[in-house]
Amino acid sequence: MEGFSHLDENGNAVMVDVTEKNITQRIARASGRIYVGEEVFNAIKGGNVPKGDVFACARVAGIMAAKKTSELIPLCHPLLLTGIAVEFETEEAQNSVKCTCTVKLSGKTGVEMEALTGTSVALLTIYDMCKAISKRMEISDIHLEEKDGGKSGHFIR
Amino acid sequence: MEGFSHLDENGNAVMVDVTEKNITQRIARASGRIYVGEEVFNAIKGGNVPKGDVFACARVAGIMAAKKTSELIPLCHPLLLTGIAVEFETEEAQNSVKCTCTVKLSGKTGVEMEALTGTSVALLTIYDMCKAISKRMEISDIHLEEKDGGKSGHFIR
Amino acid sequence: MEGFSHLDENGNAVMVDVTEKNITQRIARASGRIYVGEEVFNAIKGGNVPKGDVFACARVAGIMAAKKTSELIPLCHPLLLTGIAVEFETEEAQNSVKCTCTVKLSGKTGVEMEALTGTSVALLTIYDMCKAISKRMEISDIHLEEKDGGKSGHFIR
Amino acid sequence: MEGFSHLDENGNAVMVDVTEKNITQRIARASGRIYVGEEVFNAIKGGNVPKGDVFACARVAGIMAAKKTSELIPLCHPLLLTGIAVEFETEEAQNSVKCTCTVKLSGKTGVEMEALTGTSVALLTIYDMCKAISKRMEISDIHLEEKDGGKSGHFIR
Amino acid sequence: MEGFSHLDENGNAVMVDVTEKNITQRIARASGRIYVGEEVFNAIKGGNVPKGDVFACARVAGIMAAKKTSELIPLCHPLLLTGIAVEFETEEAQNSVKCTCTVKLSGKTGVEMEALTGTSVALLTIYDMCKAISKRMEISDIHLEEKDGGKSGHFIR
Amino acid sequence: MEGFSHLDENGNAVMVDVTEKNITQRIARASGRIYVGEEVFNAIKGGNVPKGDVFACARVAGIMAAKKTSELIPLCHPLLLTGIAVEFETEEAQNSVKCTCTVKLSGKTGVEMEALTGTSVALLTIYDMCKAISKRMEISDIHLEEKDGGKSGHFIR
Repeated sequence: MEGFSHLDENGNAVMVDVTEKNITQRIARASGRIYVGEEVFNAIKGGNVPKGDVFACARVAGIMAAKKTSELIPLCHPLLLTGIAVEFETEEAQNSVKCTCTVKLSGKTGVEMEALTGTSVALLTIYDMCKAISKRMEISDIHLEEKDGGKSGHFIR
Repeated sequence: MEGFSHLDENGNAVMVDVTEKNITQRIARASGRIYVGEEVFNAIKGGNVPKGDVFACARVAGIMAAKKTSELIPLCHPLLLTGIAVEFETEEAQNSVKCTCTVKLSGKTGVEMEALTGTSVALLTIYDMCKAISKRMEISDIHLEEKDGGKSGHFIR
Repeated sequence: MEGFSHLDENGNAVMVDVTEKNITQRIARASGRIYVGEEVFNAIKGGNVPKGDVFACARVAGIMAAKKTSELIPLCHPLLLTGIAVEFETEEAQNSVKCTCTVKLSGKTGVEMEALTGTSVALLTIYDMCKAISKRMEISDIHLEEKDGGKSGHFIR
Repeated sequence: MEGFSHLDENGNAVMVDVTEKNITQRIARASGRIYVGEEVFNAIKGGNVPKGDVFACARVAGIMAAKKTSELIPLCHPLLLTGIAVEFETEEAQNSVKCTCTVKLSGKTGVEMEALTGTSVALLTIYDMCKAISKRMEISDIHLEEKDGGKSGHFIR
Repeated sequence: MEGFSHLDENGNAVMVDVTEKNITQRIARASGRIYVGEEVFNAIKGGNVPKGDVFACARVAGIMAAKKTSELIPLCHPLLLTGIAVEFETEEAQNSVKCTCTVKLSGKTGVEMEALTGTSVALLTIYDMCKAISKRMEISDIHLEEKDGGKSGHFIR
Repeated sequence: MEGFSHLDENGNAVMVDVTEKNITQRIARASGRIYVGEEVFNAIKGGNVPKGDVFACARVAGIMAAKKTSELIPLCHPLLLTGIAVEFETEEAQNSVKCTCTVKLSGKTGVEMEALTGTSVALLTIYDMCKAISKRMEISDIHLEEKDGGKSGHFIR
């Protein structure tokens, strides 16, 4: 099916054959945001709150989720990720937290899904830890920032 | 830690004790969007493409991910979900697909994280299946739509 | 969709809502066979082979797989299985091994899929452990033997 | 233990050492059948039923299960599968559905267990989606069709 | 098999039938130690090291592992844990870190295996994060501290 | 953070980048003990008890857990283990069982965590199968015995 690498000529889902692709060094960086609102933001940022464990917990969740990508996204190839980092930045102007997940691989396929999955689960974990304060948080702006290695070349958004 | 139900008095992460909470019928509905751009949107919508399997695959991924929530989000309780539905709506005006995930439970804690996780993974799966066409898709607007059952009452956004 | 409890009125897959079903004691028993051929059968049965570990390993695999059913079969509900047993019987007349898996639950849905999954994975494990001897083994005859509890009453094949 | 590559000299289970084996391109194809009976067959085949989602769901389940093989079969090596396809064929003469699963790998061990596991779980998923109509379906005829790559050469059944 | 609740009368492993047991509130507390040696201990304790993330990461790992117990220990029943806490204490006299894991459940079986598994994996995670400094750490003293609920009454070591 | 390879310069957890490391043959051997007390020891050792399945079950659990290491220990890299063996030795003098787990890999990082995890879960499984007899068992002495391959050279304790 033109354009859809995961569909065969009858439109059926398939984990596409990459057997003959070369092993190259690959990297992908994705980011996303959770808009938490003023109350949650102040609680996270505020002096009397151990924000450490909120971000530490979300970071671990993001890293572990990136490793689970091929179990979650049906047509993703299992991959031996060689590096994962998850970072957070608090953004006061809009009461948001930005999450960036960077994934590295020496392998046969790109790792953008791994970076996007790590980002998504890290943000969901922040949501979980703050949801007792607000039910109106929103996770947004999840996209690929950068990708390198493999046939399609270097992409920067 | 006030407000953060998942942090103990020292700010340490904890899976909060719900042993004595009652079992009640609970429901949560979350939604989110993937902005795919015109080219992908037309490929999904267009006549000559079997969009069936894209959505069927993403639906299955969302349902399976909702069941995995407590493995992904570190402090979520394991739950015996009693119903999960994932629906998609194509939105031509903005070249987006909206995903809604509804989760039901007869249990001791709310299921908003399950609905949000199901939504996120369903959208990531659409991303995966379309990423050969565009690297500029964006997943956004993931939030709770409705929640009922349990102490905090009925919430509609 | 009439008859297909896992499809909604548009034919979309759904984990069917069992929230309001009663908790009852349920049991299911499934069985299946692996036809291993004479050479493998003699190796399993034969005096100088520690068949103990072949069956012990397959038994553990079947028990663990029954617990994983809701991760494997997309629309199965997560369940708190309360008992699992896996038994093997060597059948000399046809060089086969019969596996029977019995699963118990106090819960809201039947457990035939769990019994069938436990049977299947136990047989696949025997296949795996014997495949160096023969590539012509066959797994067959996997079906429900008995089921009780729940609305549909007692079924014996 | 002669013949049983997964048992050491005391008959104990072991994940056999393949450290020094070469990485070669490998492929395995397995198939199996579910005999569903006339009523289910007509429901699947019949005009007014969206059989699409039954097969789409089973296909995804089979692909995901093939990736999980080393978690299910105790002594299977973890592998970076490079391609997986699951196909269905309806067989009117005997009211059955045939499933074929093809798995590819560039790695150190064969992938027949992955193809057999993908086949088994795809068929179990069809069973699950049709079990409200009949309790007398049977999964059978699961065997290796073809295997290539590695020391044992090309095998076709 | 007398004494071995997990073996049937032939000595075969079985996930013992608890279908008819009552649901009661249960708690178990286990502890263990990692002896890290002076160099690692000072690095963990020392002023210039962010020990926060070491313990935060190990705490999350312990909580998540407690939830995975029935996937790891073949004959453990799946359980809906209702509370998990993991705590660490540095013990200067012997250059060790003590980990205590407390698990709660409203269910049919005890949760000592969950508390022991949470303890073990939390300690393994500390090992992992410090292993670049020393290869001579040792994990020891893992035992049940307290258990309550269920037929066997209150146990304190 | 000096010494802590899993913490970045801000002390945040990271799955360290090994993209550019060479693939070498690696091996690690870890061991540990469970002190079971006289009653359990005699039950395991004694003539009328099928100790086979206790050890067979624990062996399978250890092998499967070694494969799951990167899912359990947050910052461990996913690895394609090429060999795993788990052995037990009964030690009458102190009523203990010693477990040794050996893991092999052709890959980019060491496998000591895999050997330690396999050991820990095998011992936890013995605990589980004997816990109806005694609540006073203790798991101890878990450490690395030997490690080879990779930059840090050959280590024997």
